[in-house]
Amino acid sequence: MDEPRLAAIRTAIAPLDEAAMAAARARQDQLTKPPGALGRLEQLSIWLAGVRGDALAPIRNKVIIAAAADHGVAKHGVSAYPSEVTRQMALNFLAGGAAVNVLARQAGARVVIVDAGVAGDLPADPRLLSRRLMAGSDDLSVGPAMSRETAIASLLNGAALAAEQAAAGADVIGIGEMGIGNTTPAAAITATFTGLAPAAVTGRGTGITDEALRAKVQRIEQALALNRPNPADGVGVLAKVGGLEIGFLAGVCLGGAAARRPIIVDGFIATAAALIAVAVAPESRPYLLAAHRSAEPGHDAALLHLGLTPLLDLQMRLGEGTGAALGIMLLEAASRILAEMATFGEAGVSGASDATPGEG
Amino acid sequence: MDEPRLAAIRTAIAPLDEAAMAAARARQDQLTKPPGALGRLEQLSIWLAGVRGDALAPIRNKVIIAAAADHGVAKHGVSAYPSEVTRQMALNFLAGGAAVNVLARQAGARVVIVDAGVAGDLPADPRLLSRRLMAGSDDLSVGPAMSRETAIASLLNGAALAAEQAAAGADVIGIGEMGIGNTTPAAAITATFTGLAPAAVTGRGTGITDEALRAKVQRIEQALALNRPNPADGVGVLAKVGGLEIGFLAGVCLGGAAARRPIIVDGFIATAAALIAVAVAPESRPYLLAAHRSAEPGHDAALLHLGLTPLLDLQMRLGEGTGAALGIMLLEAASRILAEMATFGEAGVSGASDATPGEG
Repeated sequence: MDEPRLAAIRTAIAPLDEAAMAAARARQDQLTKPPGALGRLEQLSIWLAGVRGDALAPIRNKVIIAAAADHGVAKHGVSAYPSEVTRQMALNFLAGGAAVNVLARQAGARVVIVDAGVAGDLPADPRLLSRRLMAGSDDLSVGPAMSRETAIASLLNGAALAAEQAAAGADVIGIGEMGIGNTTPAAAITATFTGLAPAAVTGRGTGITDEALRAKVQRIEQALALNRPNPADGVGVLAKVGGLEIGFLAGVCLGGAAARRPIIVDGFIATAAALIAVAVAPESRPYLLAAHRSAEPGHDAALLHLGLTPLLDLQMRLGEGTGAALGIMLLEAASRILAEMATFGEAGVSGASDATPGEG
Repeated sequence: MDEPRLAAIRTAIAPLDEAAMAAARARQDQLTKPPGALGRLEQLSIWLAGVRGDALAPIRNKVIIAAAADHGVAKHGVSAYPSEVTRQMALNFLAGGAAVNVLARQAGARVVIVDAGVAGDLPADPRLLSRRLMAGSDDLSVGPAMSRETAIASLLNGAALAAEQAAAGADVIGIGEMGIGNTTPAAAITATFTGLAPAAVTGRGTGITDEALRAKVQRIEQALALNRPNPADGVGVLAKVGGLEIGFLAGVCLGGAAARRPIIVDGFIATAAALIAVAVAPESRPYLLAAHRSAEPGHDAALLHLGLTPLLDLQMRLGEGTGAALGIMLLEAASRILAEMATFGEAGVSGASDATPGEG
C-alpha cells in the first residue's frame, strides 16, 4: 500500500465479531421455529451481528449512497443513452422520481446523492454532495481513465462519506450509481480481476444492439491492451480502467467496513466498486453483502470472485441502488427476526422430539 | 362441479384485465429507466394491474391469513414436534411473537389467525377467527382425512373470509399456515396432482431423522393406496389426503380470485392449498403469485405443476406466511415503481439513442 491514508483505513478494518455471531447463532436456535427453518435470513442475522458487534441492535437508520459520474468512453456509443442523461438522472434523483427513490422510500432509507464527476452543471442543493474531481473520467480506451492521484482522492472521498454517515447514525449503507457508459469500466475491471476475456463479462447495459455490443467489447479489449491494469494494484486498476463513481463507491466500502457497517452492494457496477475495494483492502470483504444478481452477464463472475452469493435474482439491471434497496429490506427482515421473535421458553412452546422424550 | 356454492364462486372468477395490463406495460416503457431494466418487478406490476383491473391503484391494505389445524397422521411421528405445538404456536401468533408476526409488521400487513381445526382449546380472542370444523383431521393413512362435506365446508369458509377481507378493503392477501404434521398431507396432495412418487415430493418438514423420513414416505404411500385420490376431483383429494387449514386456504384462493385480489402463496403447504384451488377452479390460477421457493423438496414439483415461478429463494421452510410477507414487500415494490416513478417526459430525461438521432 503506497498511500498512507488508504493504509490507515485498511488498518482500521477489524475482523467480524465472533462473539456476537455466536450469540446470534445461539439465539436463533431458541426462537420458536425449527432450527434453520428461516434459511438465509438466519445466516444474514448472524453475519449482521458479526459486522456490527451486536446481535440485537435494531436497524433504524438506513442510507443508500448513490454516486453519479460521466465517462469519456461514452462518446463511442457504448450506451444506448447520451451522456447528458447522467446529469438529467441526477436531477431526477433529487426530485424523487427515479426508481431508487421509490424503492428507498419503501425501505425507509435515505438516498444521499453524490456528484463524483458528472459532466455539466448540477444545481446547488443540500441533498446533493459535490465531490466532483473531474467533469467525467477520461476515455479509458485511449489512455488511463484518471490519474493515480485522482483515483486515490475518489477512494478517500467515498471513505470519508461512509465515516460521516456512520458517525451520524447510519446502521446500514447501500451503494448505487448512475453514469452513462459505466458498464464499460465495470466490465474492464471485472475482466482484470477475474482474468476472463472482455467478451465474457460485457453485456448490453442499457440495451445496446448486437453491433454496438461488439464495438463495446473491442473498446474494452483495447483499453486493457493499452492500459495493462495489474490486478495486484487496486488503485492502479481504478485509475486505468475505472470511473469516478466506481472509485467513490469503492471508498464507501472501505470506510463502511472500517466503521463496522454492513455494505449492501447493488448490481454490476457497484460490484466492480467492491472488486476495487477488496483489491485495495481484502479486510473489507466480510462487510459486503450482494443484494441481487444482475441480468448483466459479467456480474456472476464478479460475485464469484468476491465469494458473494446474491440475495435476490429478479432479472434487474438498472443499478442506481435499486437492488440495494430491496436487499436492505431483506437484511432488516433478518435483523427483526432475531430481535423480535419469541423464544420457545418465552412463548411456552414445546421443543422438538429430540428434546422431549416420549413425544414424536 | 357437484357443489353449487363452489360452482358459483368458480363462475365469479373473471380473467385478468387485459386493458389494465396493456396500460401498465405502456407506462413501464415511459418510466425513467431502460425498458425492461427492472425485470421481474416490471412483470409483477403488469400482472397486478391485470388482477386488480387497475394499473395505478396503490397497495395500502395488506393481510396475511394464517390458518391453523391439526392432523391425525401426526401421531405417527411424521413431525419432529408434538401436535400440541399447533395450539401453542397459534397462541404465539396471537401474542405477536412468531416469525410471521415479525415479518408482517415489517411489511405493514395484518395477520388474521384462523382456527380451521386445531385440537385443544384456544381462548376467545377477537383476533382469532374460529372456523373449526373438526378437532384436527382424521388420520389419512388409515382412511379419509375428512368427509366430502367437511372438505366443501372448509373451502367455503376460506372463500367467505377472502370475500370479507376484500370487502373490508384488503388489497393483497397472503396465505400461510400452522399445523404440526402438515407437510404429510401437502406431500400426498403434491404426489396426487403431479403424478410423482411420494418419495420424490416428501421432505423433512420440521427436521425429522432419516428413519422418520422413510416412515413418513411409507405413511403417504399407504394413504394414497388406501384412499385413491383422483386428481380430477379437487374436493375429493382434499377430503381424502388433505387437511383443514389446507382446505381453508384453498378456499381463500378461490374467494380472493373471485374478488380480484392477488393471492401471495407462501411455501409448500400453502402451495398444496393452491393445487386444490386450481383443481376446483382452474380460473383461480392467474390470481396466484408464488412468494418463494421452499427448501422442502416437493415444492418445486408443485410450483411447476401450477406454472408458478417463485420470487425468492432464501432456503426458507417455515411456513406460517413468512415467505408470503416477504413476497408482499416485493409486490408492493413493483406497484410503487409503476405508480411513483417519473416518466421521461415528466423528468426531462433524454430517451435512448434509437429515439434521439444524432446521439450515441
